[in-house]
Amino acid sequence: MARWEPNTGERLQEAALDLFERGYDKTTAAEIAARAGTAKSTFFRLFPDKREVLFAGTGELAEQAVTAIAAVAPGATAFEVIDAALRAIVAVFDPEKRAWYARRQQVIDRNPELRERELLKRQAQAEAITAAIRAGGHDGLTPEVLAALIGLALNATYTRWTSAPGDQDPAELAGKVLAELRTTVTTLE
Amino acid sequence: MARWEPNTGERLQEAALDLFERGYDKTTAAEIAARAGTAKSTFFRLFPDKREVLFAGTGELAEQAVTAIAAVAPGATAFEVIDAALRAIVAVFDPEKRAWYARRQQVIDRNPELRERELLKRQAQAEAITAAIRAGGHDGLTPEVLAALIGLALNATYTRWTSAPGDQDPAELAGKVLAELRTTVTTLE
Repeated sequence: MARWEPNTGERLQEAALDLFERGYDKTTAAEIAARAGTAKSTFFRLFPDKREVLFAGTGELAEQAVTAIAAVAPGATAFEVIDAALRAIVAVFDPEKRAWYARRQQVIDRNPELRERELLKRQAQAEAITAAIRAGGHDGLTPEVLAALIGLALNATYTRWTSAPGDQDPAELAGKVLAELRTTVTTLE
Repeated sequence: MARWEPNTGERLQEAALDLFERGYDKTTAAEIAARAGTAKSTFFRLFPDKREVLFAGTGELAEQAVTAIAAVAPGATAFEVIDAALRAIVAVFDPEKRAWYARRQQVIDRNPELRERELLKRQAQAEAITAAIRAGGHDGLTPEVLAALIGLALNATYTRWTSAPGDQDPAELAGKVLAELRTTVTTLE
């Protein structure tokens, strides 16, 4: 019987990434569990399938955004909503895991199955964010437009953060992306 | 030996949708081929897997958009690029297949595997469109922003077209969506 261990989920994620880097298709959940020093049944208690091990916590990003959007003052401008959502998401980025995230992204980009799962997660995030913005009183195409811009800003921030050579403050990177996005969007004609 | 038949691809698509409506998971490529009166080998000559049968021709949408974007006059405004891309895509919508597309979308929305494939196709379209806009001389976040807005406008037009009670002209619906989008985006603050 496996004894109780803290951070079992994180150890499974570390082990999964190590093995996926050598070959995603051939890696089994049992191998991941063995490498993490735990049982296969523990793996499946924490993650519904092999792909999910790289996406634990992604639901939390949308929750942070939804909470931040709901807390925005009535009558806030569109860019205030975008800023609040992005800053809430970026606050969850863990600077100590930056290198791990960069490795994780390389593995995802190389494997269509993981790429599909990533897109499904992003779509779920976009839908949750769209619904939150609509609930805040925005109508017509505005919720979809703002959700798309938040997704795009998040993607740009995440890419810059994980591909930057040194350790950069995610919040600072987000601020730069938001300023660029505002200039880009408000000068469209 | 199967004799040569015109429209084999279309008959396979019709047969696949009929069977997917009764249950996507349990339907096999062999059953689809049998229902279409052709061989399983013909199915796999035309479609790499069971999912692809519903996505034949989706690559063409991005090609139309890319060609239209490349043909936009230098110095065109952002909304001229968006309009040109969306109108080029919508020109491919076949009014005679509207009811089939509506049924197809219901099947996709109900099956996560198909939903993932749809998102992967949309992502490929967005990347092709982003690259075309960047090649046209737009830089920074502009290509991503315009590609996101084109995708959003395409989605809104397609949803309205397939869910509209009567037969509406796709180009006219696209015009309305583009006008709404322009108003929404240019009044963001």
